[in-house]
Amino acid sequence: MADVANVAILGASGYTGAELIRMLALHPRVRLTALTADRKAGQAMASVFPHLAGLDLPDLVSLDALDLSVIDFVFCALPHGTTQEIIAKLPRDMKVCDLSADFRLDDVDVYAQWYGHAHQAPDLQSEAVYGLTELARAEIASARLVANPGCYPTSAQLPLIPLLEARLIGADPIIIDAKSGVSGAGRAAKEGSLYAEVAEGIHAYGLASHRHAPEIDQGLSRAFGAEVVATFTPHLMPMNRGILSTIYVRLENGVTSADLQACLAKRYAGEAFVRVLPEGQVPHTRHVRGSNLALMGVAADRRPGWAIVVSVIDNLVKGASGQAIQNMNVMLGFPETMGLAQVPMFP
Amino acid sequence: MADVANVAILGASGYTGAELIRMLALHPRVRLTALTADRKAGQAMASVFPHLAGLDLPDLVSLDALDLSVIDFVFCALPHGTTQEIIAKLPRDMKVCDLSADFRLDDVDVYAQWYGHAHQAPDLQSEAVYGLTELARAEIASARLVANPGCYPTSAQLPLIPLLEARLIGADPIIIDAKSGVSGAGRAAKEGSLYAEVAEGIHAYGLASHRHAPEIDQGLSRAFGAEVVATFTPHLMPMNRGILSTIYVRLENGVTSADLQACLAKRYAGEAFVRVLPEGQVPHTRHVRGSNLALMGVAADRRPGWAIVVSVIDNLVKGASGQAIQNMNVMLGFPETMGLAQVPMFP
Amino acid sequence: MADVANVAILGASGYTGAELIRMLALHPRVRLTALTADRKAGQAMASVFPHLAGLDLPDLVSLDALDLSVIDFVFCALPHGTTQEIIAKLPRDMKVCDLSADFRLDDVDVYAQWYGHAHQAPDLQSEAVYGLTELARAEIASARLVANPGCYPTSAQLPLIPLLEARLIGADPIIIDAKSGVSGAGRAAKEGSLYAEVAEGIHAYGLASHRHAPEIDQGLSRAFGAEVVATFTPHLMPMNRGILSTIYVRLENGVTSADLQACLAKRYAGEAFVRVLPEGQVPHTRHVRGSNLALMGVAADRRPGWAIVVSVIDNLVKGASGQAIQNMNVMLGFPETMGLAQVPMFP
Amino acid sequence: MADVANVAILGASGYTGAELIRMLALHPRVRLTALTADRKAGQAMASVFPHLAGLDLPDLVSLDALDLSVIDFVFCALPHGTTQEIIAKLPRDMKVCDLSADFRLDDVDVYAQWYGHAHQAPDLQSEAVYGLTELARAEIASARLVANPGCYPTSAQLPLIPLLEARLIGADPIIIDAKSGVSGAGRAAKEGSLYAEVAEGIHAYGLASHRHAPEIDQGLSRAFGAEVVATFTPHLMPMNRGILSTIYVRLENGVTSADLQACLAKRYAGEAFVRVLPEGQVPHTRHVRGSNLALMGVAADRRPGWAIVVSVIDNLVKGASGQAIQNMNVMLGFPETMGLAQVPMFP
Repeated sequence: MADVANVAILGASGYTGAELIRMLALHPRVRLTALTADRKAGQAMASVFPHLAGLDLPDLVSLDALDLSVIDFVFCALPHGTTQEIIAKLPRDMKVCDLSADFRLDDVDVYAQWYGHAHQAPDLQSEAVYGLTELARAEIASARLVANPGCYPTSAQLPLIPLLEARLIGADPIIIDAKSGVSGAGRAAKEGSLYAEVAEGIHAYGLASHRHAPEIDQGLSRAFGAEVVATFTPHLMPMNRGILSTIYVRLENGVTSADLQACLAKRYAGEAFVRVLPEGQVPHTRHVRGSNLALMGVAADRRPGWAIVVSVIDNLVKGASGQAIQNMNVMLGFPETMGLAQVPMFP
Repeated sequence: MADVANVAILGASGYTGAELIRMLALHPRVRLTALTADRKAGQAMASVFPHLAGLDLPDLVSLDALDLSVIDFVFCALPHGTTQEIIAKLPRDMKVCDLSADFRLDDVDVYAQWYGHAHQAPDLQSEAVYGLTELARAEIASARLVANPGCYPTSAQLPLIPLLEARLIGADPIIIDAKSGVSGAGRAAKEGSLYAEVAEGIHAYGLASHRHAPEIDQGLSRAFGAEVVATFTPHLMPMNRGILSTIYVRLENGVTSADLQACLAKRYAGEAFVRVLPEGQVPHTRHVRGSNLALMGVAADRRPGWAIVVSVIDNLVKGASGQAIQNMNVMLGFPETMGLAQVPMFP
Repeated sequence: MADVANVAILGASGYTGAELIRMLALHPRVRLTALTADRKAGQAMASVFPHLAGLDLPDLVSLDALDLSVIDFVFCALPHGTTQEIIAKLPRDMKVCDLSADFRLDDVDVYAQWYGHAHQAPDLQSEAVYGLTELARAEIASARLVANPGCYPTSAQLPLIPLLEARLIGADPIIIDAKSGVSGAGRAAKEGSLYAEVAEGIHAYGLASHRHAPEIDQGLSRAFGAEVVATFTPHLMPMNRGILSTIYVRLENGVTSADLQACLAKRYAGEAFVRVLPEGQVPHTRHVRGSNLALMGVAADRRPGWAIVVSVIDNLVKGASGQAIQNMNVMLGFPETMGLAQVPMFP
Repeated sequence: MADVANVAILGASGYTGAELIRMLALHPRVRLTALTADRKAGQAMASVFPHLAGLDLPDLVSLDALDLSVIDFVFCALPHGTTQEIIAKLPRDMKVCDLSADFRLDDVDVYAQWYGHAHQAPDLQSEAVYGLTELARAEIASARLVANPGCYPTSAQLPLIPLLEARLIGADPIIIDAKSGVSGAGRAAKEGSLYAEVAEGIHAYGLASHRHAPEIDQGLSRAFGAEVVATFTPHLMPMNRGILSTIYVRLENGVTSADLQACLAKRYAGEAFVRVLPEGQVPHTRHVRGSNLALMGVAADRRPGWAIVVSVIDNLVKGASGQAIQNMNVMLGFPETMGLAQVPMFP
């Protein structure tokens, strides 16, 4: 790899695009060479996102105008559904990290069932690596196309996969009660994302029907070696960033919540971005804001034989753009933490 | 009962005191005769709560200065722990609705275990009626001393008690994941309640150790006819008012989530303050803000044999002061909805 | 007037429509007979605004389907620009309170200049009465068509008109620095009103170009008897409701800030909805939330000869729907405060 | 200067202390050698501020236990009033940047008048340099003791000083209407800083009496060459970080708002942290969140001869800890932007 990679971001006018730029601007081995946004082609990034005005960035161009010959790496931050065809048209040796859901589900039939249309690039699907970095580092290192995990699935799988692999918890029930900030809904102008509709309240949505459910099931099933169907209830709450997942699990015979903590602490020892709290402590979303950290804690339930796991991430960082950069670092052979040193911002 | 009751509020300088006044000011059969607040005795209510400045209210007095001979009804909104002794000193025929936790647990040993000191008025405890109005109307009507339920317990018990009584759901596990606004922490100046510590984030607290857990267990156990231990995880989130409880339950054989909905709809048919949504719909806290309403909805889980119940209240109204007024109305023979007609305020 | 007025709300699917309903639902002499919303015709109000689900309301109909023969009074809560033609088609004896800006500017040329198109009902304009209730009660009482004032103009004119009429302050400069909650932007899905674009920040907008500026000038000029051009800077900030206007004024020779306070206190003595604080005290928006109150306070500036006036209202109540109901009460000969007794909701 | 400076932070348990650490942790030429906090001595920083848990930090010690012999530079982030005596006891050659107000006012009599007690280190006062970096770079470079400016004064002086020096605006009136986030009030547990007291509202405070007024006057007077008394009204609003100052100024004869923009653009050309927007554009606080940036914009008023200047900073960064680090860099001969490269975080 060259010392510096020329990077393109496809779909740079959304929140995950802006967040990629915020962090890549300080990455010593990345040059932001091209930014696309079809409806805003011709505009300066600073007119779309004034907080980025101080950076030396290329103007937005349309996808058609993108010169791929000068690009070493592509982040694709386009909406679900349109991404498969676009990535299929990229050169077959172009390294890509896709932030959409389009390549996250191994089984194209499951994709079709949950997304309502046939997969448009099934041949690429078999090539795609699911990019939960800490748990798939080797595959990511040799991947050409990485499917960056969803925000909720990241927060749920990081604690659950090691526990299922170790057979410390049962596969049924696993109950994931997740609370998300509003940026997860993107920058599209929707009534349900208006300040006055979101502030000062909370509600559950997508009960038993959220598209992140099959993504979670896929990861947990693989870890458990048998089909897992998780209960997953997302909630929308008034904060810009952050996901907190409160996870209720049944302990296998003789297992204690301290065993869960020890398992996770061991599994993530030495990881730069995953931190396991001492038993009985649980994290706040505020403690990861703006950073690529994932924090988790375990506590015993009042009911014997059960435990509660709490997991937090910043949905735009470890839940999207930060993990995507982490994956790029792995794919390009850069140090994994490069460009991701931000300390959480509190308050 | 006289046409108009002379009412005293003990501990009027906290949020629940202010909320009692907000609603009682429009109650056609209540005269606010006395307001106490020891540390603020001598002050006008408007200097403590400027939003109440337009009302014709008595100044705050110390508890010692209270002339009980002119009082017909007492709301006690004092902190936990101090209330038992104070109520014990009131005339034995004074009708009282106590908003603290001091008389909510029937078993004084359970009280001692969770509150860390012996119950100071065990004889009064046996007289106290637990005031979940819709489910204990008859006992409340003849009660002298009503223990007003806690906010979390109200949101959890309203849906769960009918379902357990009907044996539609199992007693284990019952998982209550609750999210609360900040006013539930009261007006005391605590670091953890500061704007900068609460805004833009969420965290769980009191895992497996919150004092509302035994109160919930007590109600569920009575409904089920056997001991129930619920999993209860409260979360603090950035909103002034509101509690949303997401409750995960196991269906008994052959029972569907539609059966749960039908059970609740039937149980609460005709209730002014409890509304059961059509199956599959779940409520927002915003839809009850400022009102005495409790809304609940039921949805099937993805895992067969399980269902999700979502219940919302305004923690300061149905979760505290509104239900207290509802109980007063029942105790004094007033129409139950009197003074409680506020339409929810949105946005 | 009949004991009960049959009322129609045209444009009931926005925030001001919902707020009219919240308050009129408890108005003892109003029956909500018809609600229109063209794009949502056929829907129940509860599906558009679930917080109103408990009320017995007619379904939404299209404007064309409205049977005016059974209507005694019309609230028009339609967008600017479309309202003039619609009101022009109503029966000429129908009493109307219009919440849009379409009839607020006496001079149709000024209207054309600020709104970019010719006035569509200039004959009606001459008939319209500007409905700042406390300051135009007599004209409102005999009006057929009342133009309900804008939110910012209400907060600015209530303190400034009496001071200008009394010649206690100079007409130049008058600097109005106003801060508004987000509900003032309505329920339309706009990027700028998204939670993630509004939360945790503030910005000024419409500098020297906001359409409420000529409305303010008109009222101040009338009071002063000569042309007044005010400086007016609105800001958008993260709260659902509320406007706070910080107003900087030059005192005429020998006048003190105490004189301003005394003038306002005298002018509004006996008013149910306007309260003037003691000199040196200034109000919070929180102290009027959900109520029809306007609070104001005066303080001396550090610079001799200047004073600072702070004025607060709830933009959806005294700044829109509450004042509209107040005007309806005056127009129909009902007690002015009827249906408007809500105590502010805090926290 | 050595390659790496050993730095101590006195008073590390407040928000400005934490913010110093967040940024200094990534500063390549700083080693955080000692952190003091008397009441929390012995604790780990991570227990006081869990968001800093990932950093390798010394535990908190009491001031008495601090070994100054190994320290090259001191940040003093202690409360007003106690700081003078503490800094007086430091070695006379220790370089210090003081974030309190204790050394900001040149005139110790003015200090005594506004702070209610005599200055405790008048000899040090004459040595202190007021650290508005862009406007006093040379003096700061040779200073031993820098008084870091207040948050409001930074936001007001950055645009006003160049305009007054250039005589483009009049000195009377200058009206500064400022809006601040809550972190400015610190982490002390005060009722007025509680979430429920701050969320969903705004209020003015300290009218004509805020202690930042004389600090602003001092800077403006020096720039103007004659006494300036500014009108300054701070407001508290619901956001964690950010100050927006809306400033109303009178133009000197023949001067236009474009001239103001040009003056500021020229003055700050080449500055890394100060950005002047094109004429007519005004900044949002969101666009600087978490960064050391100051943005400003100028617009013509509707009233001829007046202009409006809007200035934004993050109160904890350019308004406190960021500017302090910038000053340290200048004092120690490090590149001025070192450690301050954070891109603003939005949303």
